[in-house]
Amino acid sequence: MARIATVVVDVMGGDHAPDVVVTGVRTALEHDPDLRIVLTGPADVVIPLAEESDRLSAVPTTEVIAMDEHPATAVRSKKDSSIVVGCRLVREGHADGFFSAGSTGACMAAATLVMGRIRGISRPAIAAIIPASDRPSVLLDVGANADCKAGNLVQFAHMGSAYARAVLDIAEPRVGLLNIGEEPTKGSALAQEAHALMVEQVSGFVGNVEGRDVPAGTVDVIVTDGFTGNVALKVLEGLAASLFARIRDVMTASFATTMAAAVLKPGLTELKRRIDPEVHGGAPLLGVDGVCVIGHGSSGPKAIANGVHACARAVRAGLTDMIAEAVATPDA
Amino acid sequence: MARIATVVVDVMGGDHAPDVVVTGVRTALEHDPDLRIVLTGPADVVIPLAEESDRLSAVPTTEVIAMDEHPATAVRSKKDSSIVVGCRLVREGHADGFFSAGSTGACMAAATLVMGRIRGISRPAIAAIIPASDRPSVLLDVGANADCKAGNLVQFAHMGSAYARAVLDIAEPRVGLLNIGEEPTKGSALAQEAHALMVEQVSGFVGNVEGRDVPAGTVDVIVTDGFTGNVALKVLEGLAASLFARIRDVMTASFATTMAAAVLKPGLTELKRRIDPEVHGGAPLLGVDGVCVIGHGSSGPKAIANGVHACARAVRAGLTDMIAEAVATPDA
Repeated sequence: MARIATVVVDVMGGDHAPDVVVTGVRTALEHDPDLRIVLTGPADVVIPLAEESDRLSAVPTTEVIAMDEHPATAVRSKKDSSIVVGCRLVREGHADGFFSAGSTGACMAAATLVMGRIRGISRPAIAAIIPASDRPSVLLDVGANADCKAGNLVQFAHMGSAYARAVLDIAEPRVGLLNIGEEPTKGSALAQEAHALMVEQVSGFVGNVEGRDVPAGTVDVIVTDGFTGNVALKVLEGLAASLFARIRDVMTASFATTMAAAVLKPGLTELKRRIDPEVHGGAPLLGVDGVCVIGHGSSGPKAIANGVHACARAVRAGLTDMIAEAVATPDA
Repeated sequence: MARIATVVVDVMGGDHAPDVVVTGVRTALEHDPDLRIVLTGPADVVIPLAEESDRLSAVPTTEVIAMDEHPATAVRSKKDSSIVVGCRLVREGHADGFFSAGSTGACMAAATLVMGRIRGISRPAIAAIIPASDRPSVLLDVGANADCKAGNLVQFAHMGSAYARAVLDIAEPRVGLLNIGEEPTKGSALAQEAHALMVEQVSGFVGNVEGRDVPAGTVDVIVTDGFTGNVALKVLEGLAASLFARIRDVMTASFATTMAAAVLKPGLTELKRRIDPEVHGGAPLLGVDGVCVIGHGSSGPKAIANGVHACARAVRAGLTDMIAEAVATPDA
């Protein structure tokens, strides 16, 4: 039996909130009998929902942070928002982790301000779980820190490696530094300095990797600054979406192609499913003192459920302690 | 009738040199009756080849720069290499442009050292031509400059825009700055500073674009530093290759899928062709005082021919003068 995990879910997070979130919450509870969920959001949504199961409870909130609000300002002014209250519940020990498909910036600001950073971590980072043919990999930072120092990248390596062990069940993650050449002397001044530090301080460090290694899943953890990581992630998402759309056009071009496509559909659907970001359900914010997973705004119920599961797995594995230990003993 | 253009081709450039280059040269001559080609490479290759056509001439060279040699060192020590001699022929006015599918670093070093930079250009940049659904776009820098200043990015914008006009027939190219958010205040310090300069100095500047705009072709010219651009390009190439490989696996999984795939093959082949980097045949090195296009090491004959054609188009349009003018009057 898995250890009980209590996850706060922001029912107002995402483009299709609260309906999609509610469905996702029900699915998550079905699949994990040891999961408890605390709902934050408007009373008329969370109170009736909480009555559905004794593993659900409600903390009504009166404010909502919209996707387009300035994150730090919104978090400071809307203290009774579903996001800020959710983070506070983790901070105060009422829950173990927080999941929201709301504004990434607001979740990041709230988690950092309310939960605080893990001792020794200078910059929390957002990780993306990249689907690959055999097993997923962790790419970070994908946007929390547009400008980084080499020491930040070393901490990202520790945090990404801890997440891969805790949530993706990879016993000894191989860590690569995203660069524009394989040799240690290649790349920007930042990449060269980070390479030198990572050789000394990061266990599992295999050296530089290049852009093509991101979709290939050559290593388990790919470390980069938040500018490069964000661009890489969005190139990946953009190309996958546009290629599948164009393949659909080819398949529906005529009666004959539509018939032929029907034969291929199971295989292609499985392929699409394997590279579907919905499967992993969210981007963990690493380095804050509590588990926090941020879902894509466009998350469907499956992505919401998977985001909650990722939260619960991170809680059960003791992710936060693992990161704290890795940073305390950087040459481990 | 097109103006006569004379292009030097390094027959020793590329993984499959000289055979593939020789085939590509013949194809290029067939398609462009006003093209002259000067061949650099070993006497036993270039002299017999030059006898095939009075539009071919040979300049035998005794040295070859390998893909894995240190670029600057090799260029300085191998003065009679096919790359260095090729650039010198342009410098001395014996030819208008240079094409090689050899070492990118060596071509860049040779072109910069031998041809020199266009007056006013501080850093030459390598551009990649990104295939998109309707028309290609120019992404630069993709690797010449791992660390950039905002002023470099402004020059990249001028150079990319000139290339789009000269070679891609885009009358008024729209220029975007690759960033991690649409607002001018988003992104790294470099991106914010570059945004402010580009608003003032770059005609056709439409603001920030994001990673997903690279495959989408939202704008005609995408400007970024050589680190981010290289990662973006390689993510794109890597994902496209791996997706097509996996689609092929789905299609060849059984007799039924192979039959069905046959119906879809023309459409998918056309789709693959449209996003195929071979179509554009090479990456122009912009900012050097002469036309220089560098082909992919894995170029086939079609890519070689298309790289030579791109060179000829740039020569005929007066690309070098266009860049010099754009830099002389940056607020044009």
